[in-house]
Amino acid sequence: MGESVAVLGAAGYAGAVASTLLHRHPYFELAFVTARADAGERLDAVHPRTRVPLVLEEYDPDRHAEVDAAVVAYPHGAAAPVVEQLRERGVRVVDLSADFRLHDRAVYEDWYGEHAAPALIGDAVYGLPELHRSEIAGAGLVANPGCYPTAAILALAPLARAGLLGDVVIDAKSGVSGAGREPSAGKHFVAVDETVTPYKVGRHRHTPEIEQELGDGVRVTFTPHLVPVAHGELVSCYVTPTRTEDARPLYDEAYGDEPWVEVVDDPPGMQEVRETNFCRISVHGDERTGRLIVFATIDNLWKGTSSQAVQNLNLMFGRDEGEGL
Amino acid sequence: MGESVAVLGAAGYAGAVASTLLHRHPYFELAFVTARADAGERLDAVHPRTRVPLVLEEYDPDRHAEVDAAVVAYPHGAAAPVVEQLRERGVRVVDLSADFRLHDRAVYEDWYGEHAAPALIGDAVYGLPELHRSEIAGAGLVANPGCYPTAAILALAPLARAGLLGDVVIDAKSGVSGAGREPSAGKHFVAVDETVTPYKVGRHRHTPEIEQELGDGVRVTFTPHLVPVAHGELVSCYVTPTRTEDARPLYDEAYGDEPWVEVVDDPPGMQEVRETNFCRISVHGDERTGRLIVFATIDNLWKGTSSQAVQNLNLMFGRDEGEGL
Amino acid sequence: MGESVAVLGAAGYAGAVASTLLHRHPYFELAFVTARADAGERLDAVHPRTRVPLVLEEYDPDRHAEVDAAVVAYPHGAAAPVVEQLRERGVRVVDLSADFRLHDRAVYEDWYGEHAAPALIGDAVYGLPELHRSEIAGAGLVANPGCYPTAAILALAPLARAGLLGDVVIDAKSGVSGAGREPSAGKHFVAVDETVTPYKVGRHRHTPEIEQELGDGVRVTFTPHLVPVAHGELVSCYVTPTRTEDARPLYDEAYGDEPWVEVVDDPPGMQEVRETNFCRISVHGDERTGRLIVFATIDNLWKGTSSQAVQNLNLMFGRDEGEGL
Amino acid sequence: MGESVAVLGAAGYAGAVASTLLHRHPYFELAFVTARADAGERLDAVHPRTRVPLVLEEYDPDRHAEVDAAVVAYPHGAAAPVVEQLRERGVRVVDLSADFRLHDRAVYEDWYGEHAAPALIGDAVYGLPELHRSEIAGAGLVANPGCYPTAAILALAPLARAGLLGDVVIDAKSGVSGAGREPSAGKHFVAVDETVTPYKVGRHRHTPEIEQELGDGVRVTFTPHLVPVAHGELVSCYVTPTRTEDARPLYDEAYGDEPWVEVVDDPPGMQEVRETNFCRISVHGDERTGRLIVFATIDNLWKGTSSQAVQNLNLMFGRDEGEGL
Repeated sequence: MGESVAVLGAAGYAGAVASTLLHRHPYFELAFVTARADAGERLDAVHPRTRVPLVLEEYDPDRHAEVDAAVVAYPHGAAAPVVEQLRERGVRVVDLSADFRLHDRAVYEDWYGEHAAPALIGDAVYGLPELHRSEIAGAGLVANPGCYPTAAILALAPLARAGLLGDVVIDAKSGVSGAGREPSAGKHFVAVDETVTPYKVGRHRHTPEIEQELGDGVRVTFTPHLVPVAHGELVSCYVTPTRTEDARPLYDEAYGDEPWVEVVDDPPGMQEVRETNFCRISVHGDERTGRLIVFATIDNLWKGTSSQAVQNLNLMFGRDEGEGL
Repeated sequence: MGESVAVLGAAGYAGAVASTLLHRHPYFELAFVTARADAGERLDAVHPRTRVPLVLEEYDPDRHAEVDAAVVAYPHGAAAPVVEQLRERGVRVVDLSADFRLHDRAVYEDWYGEHAAPALIGDAVYGLPELHRSEIAGAGLVANPGCYPTAAILALAPLARAGLLGDVVIDAKSGVSGAGREPSAGKHFVAVDETVTPYKVGRHRHTPEIEQELGDGVRVTFTPHLVPVAHGELVSCYVTPTRTEDARPLYDEAYGDEPWVEVVDDPPGMQEVRETNFCRISVHGDERTGRLIVFATIDNLWKGTSSQAVQNLNLMFGRDEGEGL
Repeated sequence: MGESVAVLGAAGYAGAVASTLLHRHPYFELAFVTARADAGERLDAVHPRTRVPLVLEEYDPDRHAEVDAAVVAYPHGAAAPVVEQLRERGVRVVDLSADFRLHDRAVYEDWYGEHAAPALIGDAVYGLPELHRSEIAGAGLVANPGCYPTAAILALAPLARAGLLGDVVIDAKSGVSGAGREPSAGKHFVAVDETVTPYKVGRHRHTPEIEQELGDGVRVTFTPHLVPVAHGELVSCYVTPTRTEDARPLYDEAYGDEPWVEVVDDPPGMQEVRETNFCRISVHGDERTGRLIVFATIDNLWKGTSSQAVQNLNLMFGRDEGEGL
Repeated sequence: MGESVAVLGAAGYAGAVASTLLHRHPYFELAFVTARADAGERLDAVHPRTRVPLVLEEYDPDRHAEVDAAVVAYPHGAAAPVVEQLRERGVRVVDLSADFRLHDRAVYEDWYGEHAAPALIGDAVYGLPELHRSEIAGAGLVANPGCYPTAAILALAPLARAGLLGDVVIDAKSGVSGAGREPSAGKHFVAVDETVTPYKVGRHRHTPEIEQELGDGVRVTFTPHLVPVAHGELVSCYVTPTRTEDARPLYDEAYGDEPWVEVVDDPPGMQEVRETNFCRISVHGDERTGRLIVFATIDNLWKGTSSQAVQNLNLMFGRDEGEGL
């Protein structure tokens, strides 16, 4: 058995998937799982598919710092103080919230409000292995990317690097688990079934993250849509390139050696990556308009959140990147 | 009882909805329903929800021309010769296929192949009542718009008219009935469930129709996606406007008196117009990029096809436009 | 315009459908719609598909008794006192709750707890028109049946009448709208999607209602299951008959003249009656075991609740039973 | 690497899952995959989620017998001759078809027509490990159970063994993958979505298999229903017991040591076992009627077919029963 890991906030969808993967991981030991409302229940009672027989505990800063690493699956804002406590006790952290993803505190506070632990911002590494693998390896604090940014950045990074990113529109479709486990009118089966609905038009908080990682003052129009799917995510990216160039070779080069990015010919569907750590990408030229169209699909709870967290843990502790995935 | 109407190709999804609406129409009389593979069956056996107790007949050019009007629900290419026969016999036609939608024969043949009845192209009126109401009233041949064009044109016409249409991206989502009733691997429940898949990227045949109606050399990037919904359609339109202007008043003005177009504040979901002749539209400014975002949703089998056909029939025969809808 | 009707509790699913049907009813006038949490909103903002432009009001016993009739769409227990107030003011009522469905107060209190208006129990007529048409016509208070009982009783009444009902198992499947609009963990899209779950095994409160109407000390095992469908209901009834007899003629005789019951050969699917007042029934003999199998499907919000309420109103006010349906 | 295994008919749903599991199995080597219509394609092109990069080959009796074992995923009737060829060449076989499940040739021929390889019937072991573990270990030919029988037999075997099985009704619900990958009208998304439909009432071919394994002249009424779910299966069993007895201890005893059967308190939903080899069972007494109600849920493509096939292979080759599952 290798390093011990706790999952804080394990009763949410992301925490449950992280717990599942760590529980059956050949190296790490899942030491604790915590929750608030569901504390006292066994995780496999709350989420049978995890088959994790651990009892959910209330978070205790001392007790739950007796681990080598922690995955923090808390909402934005709530994560920062807990991450700070853990870091002070020497626990290496993968934080699933947005609290440490943005390097620029001002940008964070613009979109999310006051930051609770600004001193740590500078320590955090943006946890997208395909872009920041070597920094992740040595990091004490990894800010796991949002689900939409994971797909959108992987879709557009090869164009960004080549200086091809002109005007960018990202039309994203996400399954309902992306909105969390808390019951609400908008997540009622009857409200979601047989419909597609755009939301947070022009103001989704994943926007600055995408722009930060694409760099160079890129501004994107990002519009998410809710689709009647439990988990899965597809981003359709429309790019007016800065010059005419065959884009496919850029993708083959960028991702040819990446174990978890598949560049394919046909537009991928969400099903193709369901419950995997894969991101599937296809790139197309629209001859009539000269535009480039790039699709990327992931499972929002896996590569978009929790399997990517495990990928990051593997890197942080020098394991094979795909171990247990 | 008013004029008699036949529905040709009534066993398909569009034909079945048209038959349903005409059968319960307070004025028109549904005289005949025809089909090929299902000939001999009662329509309500093939499609119980129609509750149309008529037997599907094989099409007979003479017998089925003994009506005042016909709705032709044939595939592209197959419609033109039958429409020609009906017109020669004096039957007024609403054609659901693409055969007479494009005014320019060369454009048609570019996208669809050789035209079987080019002489009739000039007679056809594009059957979008909100744009061509008066021409439809006197028409012998109405080319009913495609489902995507119905939504996309209604979404963008106010901007086009105001000369605001710069760069245009249309990301469309459609329910599976839009692909027809013929079984295929791509329409198998297991292939569609829990996924979203882009298709015909850069080459969907509804593109030229949209461009024709928006006029002025507009070029659009149009990308359809299949979603796990039986019927329903949403177009998300991203427009770089030619100048900065508050767009909402243009929509209020364009559609304030339109009975079947609802301009709303929040992004509409497909459910809101399910099994109705309504098109719901919202328009948003993305302050960060200056882009305009317009959403329009319809039921692809209703306003996108068959209830619009009945709306056209009402206009053609001088009835109230919304009769029976 | 005919009699005026109020819908109390119009913001729930059942109330919204009742409001829709009464708003477009050719005879009745929908005078008021009330709600609690959503008071002040327009009904068509809360439920766009209703297209009812009335503002939801808080219930006022005086003001809202200025109608000829009311549909009360309140939860069990909450309905009784309001029904009593309305009856005292001379308003005729169709109550969608269970409060007045059971003739025997003791049975009611066994399953639901103390009755708030027991004096009215004796006045109420069980509102299943196919069984109690003439009593409904003169009634001041109609207790609209539950959705499961509507399907189950229609499925089994012909056998009950013929004295054929031996042992009875009812395995029922219902769409999620049957569980109401209140958000909860069990109605979250992710909890319902891609699964089927039995619930309230052996203790669903619709059981005594079914037994009351089938009469003669019949005891049924009734087990509901939640299926990933918005609305729709199917009951599969397994009957060990008291003697060997061809059952189909009993159904043809019982329902041959019923406008809203369709006896069919093949097992019906929920889709066939979606958003209609129809109940579709098929009856089969299992030769190997001698058992009779009867399927009945309805839309739980229509024939199972609100269109049946309108059917009852039509009867109460001497209109054609199918008017506005 | 251990024994080599071929999957014949790998392009169907069951074959694809078997290939996936064997490809990532820590011991067995997936040597060949065959298909008819899709021969020449890579399996991961036809079924991306398999991530099996092997090319589908046309079956060649000689070449594909160069393996230690084969999983035959052919339709009923087509399997028997191929199984015979493989057995003649000494290949150990897990046959997913019904061809060798029924010990009594006459019963087989009653339900399926003439048997193509009757000489082998006596050699076959019914591959339900929980009932026939030791026989499977030494078998050359394992007849993998049908999906419904797997769930139904596991649900009822403890009662059968205790002599408690009186009258039995099995109401089963299955996802669409159970009907196979071949496109058809009944599997079209629009036909399955938002509905539940009973089928093959009183004549589903899984009936005799269930009765054979429950033994003692048991006769069951078995009624399958199609539900809008991709994969998953639930059987709801209604038993009039031969005597009054608390049934739960029988289940705890029968399955307490079984790694893949979970006896739970609450009625299980399909989701809880999705893409696992688990069968979840709950047992309830209906006090009002004295009836026992047993629910069992499996994934029809996993424990219902292909993961059970791997469980059988593990047993046949002396591996840990759960290896690779």
